[in-house]
Amino acid sequence: MRSISAYSIKLPIIEEEDDLGKIIAEELTAERFDLADDDILVIAHTIVSKSEGRIRRLKEITPSDKAFKIAEKKDEDPRFIQAVLDETKEVLIDYPIFLVEAKCGNICINAGVDRSNVEEGYLILLPKDPDASAEKIGRRIFELTKRRVGVIISDTNGRPFRIGQVGFSIGIYGIEPIRDWKGKKDIFGRRLEITEEAISDELASMSNILMGEGDWCSPVVVIRGLSVLSDDREGIKKIYRDETTDYIRRAIKNFYSH
Amino acid sequence: MRSISAYSIKLPIIEEEDDLGKIIAEELTAERFDLADDDILVIAHTIVSKSEGRIRRLKEITPSDKAFKIAEKKDEDPRFIQAVLDETKEVLIDYPIFLVEAKCGNICINAGVDRSNVEEGYLILLPKDPDASAEKIGRRIFELTKRRVGVIISDTNGRPFRIGQVGFSIGIYGIEPIRDWKGKKDIFGRRLEITEEAISDELASMSNILMGEGDWCSPVVVIRGLSVLSDDREGIKKIYRDETTDYIRRAIKNFYSH
Repeated sequence: MRSISAYSIKLPIIEEEDDLGKIIAEELTAERFDLADDDILVIAHTIVSKSEGRIRRLKEITPSDKAFKIAEKKDEDPRFIQAVLDETKEVLIDYPIFLVEAKCGNICINAGVDRSNVEEGYLILLPKDPDASAEKIGRRIFELTKRRVGVIISDTNGRPFRIGQVGFSIGIYGIEPIRDWKGKKDIFGRRLEITEEAISDELASMSNILMGEGDWCSPVVVIRGLSVLSDDREGIKKIYRDETTDYIRRAIKNFYSH
Repeated sequence: MRSISAYSIKLPIIEEEDDLGKIIAEELTAERFDLADDDILVIAHTIVSKSEGRIRRLKEITPSDKAFKIAEKKDEDPRFIQAVLDETKEVLIDYPIFLVEAKCGNICINAGVDRSNVEEGYLILLPKDPDASAEKIGRRIFELTKRRVGVIISDTNGRPFRIGQVGFSIGIYGIEPIRDWKGKKDIFGRRLEITEEAISDELASMSNILMGEGDWCSPVVVIRGLSVLSDDREGIKKIYRDETTDYIRRAIKNFYSH
């Protein structure tokens, strides 16, 4: 019998320039929770973004013509639309949903720009470089605790075909996003056809169950029981499909360009 | 600090007409694992399909013209393509990937028809009615253990935009697939904009980490630490998007119909 466990950690409200690694380490100590090597920390991007000042004030945003046009179709605040456009590499659908490839590579609604869990009149953005954010926290935790942990920065996104959001990984440190089953055998000894498991997304989903969406204030989850740490430094980009072989993205771009 | 744990259970190779609920209950007893009320069993569909005889012999399949046509484009066995068509409600893309809505409602590659973890020359299909399968197992477990558990039948699927498979829920009993955050507040006391969490998919992902894809022979995972059981009987269909508001499905159908 193998097992894994996930523990959620409550944190105080995070402000710009907070030392997130230190705050997490201190909260763990306060909870008498000793980190172990191979533990994985899953951290909601919201608190990472806040500590990095990835916040914008609606008042200070001047919408472009493009933002006004999209905002009108959607009956939405053009300043919010402008904030999304500023975080976007490519718009896939602008209406009735606003599906884009965010600059960090994640394909999601509104480029991850959110009005929840931030003060009124402000927007919260995704971290600029979520892998770098994960690395910074992972290294700080090591400095303070001497434990070699993996770090996943997570967000919640919707999915095509299915109702409801789940947790996704948008930045990683110390682990690979894909667990490779290539060359492994099935129960009858034959080569497996399915060979790639998106383990960082599965771990983000697992953690999201404990984080909750609202005022649970549990933006950090520690996962224990796996040995999946790795020195690979390619980061999260390994999980994003190459545009040329993403047949669904191709259909979307073609259909919504009309 | 809140926590959840997942425990994987090894099972012998399952055959047609095996009493799955009884085998699981016996294995748990052999492992000295006492089920508790509110535990959730996540079960890989493969063993459910086997116990229900949802297996086909390639030799006995006669492909239609349509199957031959698709098979030629894909350089695939037309009998395999026919088996997929027989399990399909609607083809969304036939080439270069074979993305369909399976009769059970799940949108996935190959309608879930698989050559792995089944004997050479045979195919394994999805259960006909995964909610009914989940209910049958849940009721049998209750009969034998007097524990009221939730049951999720899982499969692994790929996703648009992202590399790698994750676990998905395709049948449920005793729980709702969506955790509703409507009316809940964010950390600043404002109404949440994101209101629906696909918790059954998150639990399937969490379990998939322990099941493994290959010969780990751990097709059952028990999740402990949540109180999400429900008497709701709507089942998994709540998680499938209505076709008319699925903007991505619309784009795919339009683009690939040419």
